Amino acid sequence: MISHAPSPIDLARLKEVLDGPWAEVREALRDQLDARFLPVYGENDERARERISGLLTDLPVEPGIASAFPAAYGGRSDVGASIVASEMLAQVDLSLMVKAGVQWGLFGGAVAALGTRRHHDAYLRDIISAKILGCFAMTETGHGSDVQQLRTTCTYDPQTQTFDLHTPYEAARKDYIGNAARDGRMAVVFAQLITGGRRHGVHAWLVPIRDAQGNPLPGVTIGDAGPKAGLLGVDNGRISFDHVRVPRDMLLDRYGQVAEDGTYSSPIANDSRRFFTMLGTLVRGRVSVGGAASAATKSALAIAVRYGDIRRQFTAPDADREVLLNDYLAHQRKLLPALATTYAFHFAQAELVTALSEMQSDDSPVDEHRQRELESRAAGLKAAQTWHATRTIQMCREACGGAGYLAENRLPGLKADTDVFTTFEGDNTVLLQLVAKGLLTGYRDEFGSLDGWGRASFVAEQVREMMLERTAARSLIQRLVSAVPGRDEEIAVTDRGWQLKMFEDREKHLLETAIRRLRGGAATKKDRPFDIFNDVQDHVLAVAAAHIDRVTLEAFVAGIESSADPAVRALLSRVCDLYALSVIEANKAWFLEHARLTPARSKAITAVVNGLLKELRPHMRTLVDGFAIPDAWLHCAILREEPGRQETMAAHDAAGDPQAVPV
Amino acid sequence: MISHAPSPIDLARLKEVLDGPWAEVREALRDQLDARFLPVYGENDERARERISGLLTDLPVEPGIASAFPAAYGGRSDVGASIVASEMLAQVDLSLMVKAGVQWGLFGGAVAALGTRRHHDAYLRDIISAKILGCFAMTETGHGSDVQQLRTTCTYDPQTQTFDLHTPYEAARKDYIGNAARDGRMAVVFAQLITGGRRHGVHAWLVPIRDAQGNPLPGVTIGDAGPKAGLLGVDNGRISFDHVRVPRDMLLDRYGQVAEDGTYSSPIANDSRRFFTMLGTLVRGRVSVGGAASAATKSALAIAVRYGDIRRQFTAPDADREVLLNDYLAHQRKLLPALATTYAFHFAQAELVTALSEMQSDDSPVDEHRQRELESRAAGLKAAQTWHATRTIQMCREACGGAGYLAENRLPGLKADTDVFTTFEGDNTVLLQLVAKGLLTGYRDEFGSLDGWGRASFVAEQVREMMLERTAARSLIQRLVSAVPGRDEEIAVTDRGWQLKMFEDREKHLLETAIRRLRGGAATKKDRPFDIFNDVQDHVLAVAAAHIDRVTLEAFVAGIESSADPAVRALLSRVCDLYALSVIEANKAWFLEHARLTPARSKAITAVVNGLLKELRPHMRTLVDGFAIPDAWLHCAILREEPGRQETMAAHDAAGDPQAVPV
Repeated sequence: MISHAPSPIDLARLKEVLDGPWAEVREALRDQLDARFLPVYGENDERARERISGLLTDLPVEPGIASAFPAAYGGRSDVGASIVASEMLAQVDLSLMVKAGVQWGLFGGAVAALGTRRHHDAYLRDIISAKILGCFAMTETGHGSDVQQLRTTCTYDPQTQTFDLHTPYEAARKDYIGNAARDGRMAVVFAQLITGGRRHGVHAWLVPIRDAQGNPLPGVTIGDAGPKAGLLGVDNGRISFDHVRVPRDMLLDRYGQVAEDGTYSSPIANDSRRFFTMLGTLVRGRVSVGGAASAATKSALAIAVRYGDIRRQFTAPDADREVLLNDYLAHQRKLLPALATTYAFHFAQAELVTALSEMQSDDSPVDEHRQRELESRAAGLKAAQTWHATRTIQMCREACGGAGYLAENRLPGLKADTDVFTTFEGDNTVLLQLVAKGLLTGYRDEFGSLDGWGRASFVAEQVREMMLERTAARSLIQRLVSAVPGRDEEIAVTDRGWQLKMFEDREKHLLETAIRRLRGGAATKKDRPFDIFNDVQDHVLAVAAAHIDRVTLEAFVAGIESSADPAVRALLSRVCDLYALSVIEANKAWFLEHARLTPARSKAITAVVNGLLKELRPHMRTLVDGFAIPDAWLHCAILREEPGRQETMAAHDAAGDPQAVPV
Repeated sequence: MISHAPSPIDLARLKEVLDGPWAEVREALRDQLDARFLPVYGENDERARERISGLLTDLPVEPGIASAFPAAYGGRSDVGASIVASEMLAQVDLSLMVKAGVQWGLFGGAVAALGTRRHHDAYLRDIISAKILGCFAMTETGHGSDVQQLRTTCTYDPQTQTFDLHTPYEAARKDYIGNAARDGRMAVVFAQLITGGRRHGVHAWLVPIRDAQGNPLPGVTIGDAGPKAGLLGVDNGRISFDHVRVPRDMLLDRYGQVAEDGTYSSPIANDSRRFFTMLGTLVRGRVSVGGAASAATKSALAIAVRYGDIRRQFTAPDADREVLLNDYLAHQRKLLPALATTYAFHFAQAELVTALSEMQSDDSPVDEHRQRELESRAAGLKAAQTWHATRTIQMCREACGGAGYLAENRLPGLKADTDVFTTFEGDNTVLLQLVAKGLLTGYRDEFGSLDGWGRASFVAEQVREMMLERTAARSLIQRLVSAVPGRDEEIAVTDRGWQLKMFEDREKHLLETAIRRLRGGAATKKDRPFDIFNDVQDHVLAVAAAHIDRVTLEAFVAGIESSADPAVRALLSRVCDLYALSVIEANKAWFLEHARLTPARSKAITAVVNGLLKELRPHMRTLVDGFAIPDAWLHCAILREEPGRQETMAAHDAAGDPQAVPV
């Protein structure tokens, strides 16, 4: 049997690295979010919505999701604190996190980012205090991913100096809107702005939708999206407008103004560019969802790992007790690579939050290049983290067997509530495509004149430089990569430089060949531009995935450096090996096809991974304890201290075992 | 844009192949199971349980899950009809399917299989008519996978000629038991039989647990497992026994008898062998769960494919309408391989049901060899189909975006209800291990004397022969494989013989190397027998997976032969290509590592798969229509005929589009 040496890791040091720059926000919320904020299992929709609405106003404002609001209105102008608060809330109750995210992130965030002084003065304080509850009415039944093509119209009438907000047909109604079915009094509504008979693309208005008694206002029809897979506490609904009059000054006019006479003006002339700039200001939502997904994943892993350390099944031939689940290689193969990947995403997310916070708190003019890169990284990490959450929470459910299917053990809720994260704040496949487009610079611009791809390898080099200059600890990583000798076969697969080189190499090669194939397609399919791109869509998505993998590994490498404790660094370094080799293992076929791995070396990787599992087995509990999730927050019956029961079980295993009946 | 040529397939011919030998059962249930049996969305547990209990007695007995009971008692002695009925019911309501499966499959099935004439005469009619509702009380809190180690005891007392049924401590209580929390009046209880101070291993008793008023009988404590992730209509509970007296004749004594004086006798001397023989008679449950998982997968795919054929998003540069989701390569890459795999499992399941039915209806003595092979196949296909269901239904949910998260669109229920299928009727990982053990003949027997592995390659050859002789259409498959010339590089990857050879080869090589590694471990780790096996557990599980893949492909190949219609055969043949190449693609790294694929050929496979997707795109709808799921059974709002809405949307897309506003 494997012996489990007591871990020499100082948990406080590990927690310190993981808690990162917003440690005090995390600690404050660990203290403040007590048992009454935890989910109630088996509730119906109505009761859940009522409870969550009530809790919303009890949530601490400071620190909290509202921390991102300007200090002048009661926030603390700290976008990092806001995102970290979302992460913490996600470990308490995901309905509450989403409800709060709709109110302070999406709704309030849109008023702050797209509105101007008069909107801020009039509404932000009441939004922060939740006196005004609001919706973020963007998605329509017919348009979710392609929001540039929303069908709701808002037409200016100079006679009355009002806009006419209208839902022309059912597919144009606002759908899946949080806070709509029950609580919202106002909504930020996205619609096509038309004035003087001309369209100017999508803009946003702040629109009252219910009166003080909670009844829909005239012309506003509100429906209920009905029961959902999860997030029962969130009142998602549908909103239609029948020629609703909206005063001119309710246009959130930071990026586009309409004068009394209907003259349109904007600091950004191009409709499409303006629209994407507006969307860009809302990037925080995507970062919060990615972080929340990882936070929920940590809860699930904490449950499964701790259960695997107490649950025994089947007797080993050389033991008198049954074997702990965590001692089985197959169980380690499920839990540990997922845990290593969760660590990797933790550091990638933390790096992203820091970068976003620096950019948004900086008073200097926004560097568009830097902003685009951050938006792309936010999109990619949102997709990667939410897919990882879906897969991992499912795996944890299965790893806990029948117990994992009972609501009282938390996993069903984590699974059902996070499921939609792969869809909202941007469908993951669409987001990956966005990432790829960012990498294939000029993809959009060159769409019409595909000859531009003639300079493909030049473009690819440019793109690569653009990507590489942006990542953390670049000099360290460059040093590690440069230290790798020419003949790969001689290097250990645990050499960090070699791992980094493999990740870089895969991304670069996929990108270059994607460009080459697009160029080839452009030459032969001139009359079928859709096919040019569609035929390589899988390749293009692979570019994005490889990019996110590389960014994540580099963030992990940089993250290890942020600890001064040698034992913590050593442990994280092994976890990083497991992450890197798991990704390489999952993409072995590609590396073999492209002669980056020999068959012998490829086989060796499986053996090294299994060796790492053995090495990390004694640290499994430490690794989940590092997340510092309060025991109460896990809210899980199978982990609840039941000394009587545990004792009885142990006593019986040892003495009262039926095996002891004389045979 | 891709043009969609109308499909030349005669749907009736496709349906005929898929409906197979129990077509009349399928058709009868398509007729009889009307709207009142469909799920109600948004129900709470209590209401769902009440409704499902009520519907249970309304279900047709003939054909139905009860069809497996002997004709003498009101069944039709048709195990195939029973399993097919489970599959059909799974497309109507999974709670109802499980509730009925517990009553007639597990509970009634155990009385039929483990009891003798007096039990049959006394109870089977009332069980079939659902006058007596019952539980299958096997699993305990502490023992789920390792049921041979159950802790409940049942001790014979010759004085009173009764058994004393007892739960010695909390971990020994019966847990997750369907029909326990609300409805069950009796239970088949599994416990350690003790008589004359000796243990004889696990046996089963038929035990009343509630009186006519529904109150627990003295000594019986019944708890509620509480809210679950899904299957809300099933009343799972916990049962403990405090020295409950059970009359001697309530022992289900087909495989073990206790005389009045306490003398134990059995036709099978070895406790362990007897136990596995008893379990073997219950194999139908596993086959039903596998089939139900695939049935639910078909419903999910029907929804996602049909939605992808009406849902449009993003405008292509060369089109005036937005692009259908199903026209995107990335969408095809999600749906079509999953659909092809579902077809493959359909044929594998159908072959298994036929084989099981033949074996059980045969009056000749059971061929143990054949029975073991069937049990192994049942275990493997249960694991494969239920994992495929979990992955595919999740993918379909995501493919339907936000709509997929709404209960009214069915997918949340399909997902939540089938989730536990990977766990119940045997944890999938444990089942794969069982399959592998079956292949590694002698694994168990040789456990003590590992020198036996010295003859490993001989054993492997034996095993291989054993496996190969059992599969369907063996001569056809042998012919196809034999026709493959020596130099693989010259054969098209769509050559069926080559595909079969690749599958066979992978299984055989994995098996032989697993045996070699076990032998090597036995030589070097003599003092650590647990490690000998645990260190190669991942390899052993890979053997099982490769075996199931091969069995499935062979069944698909045989299934194609069962159609006389050339167009149907041609279509199925392309689908089979996609299945085979998807499996090869997923295991490319292995084939490359073992020189079964060159890098160039490996890359070519990806291109061929993409070509197949293009070729099958126009048939997507046909392929899901072939399942012949009644429209009403899909019970899905986004597919409901809303001509008004569709028309309006189309009209607006064409004419009222805001794009038409002059710019």
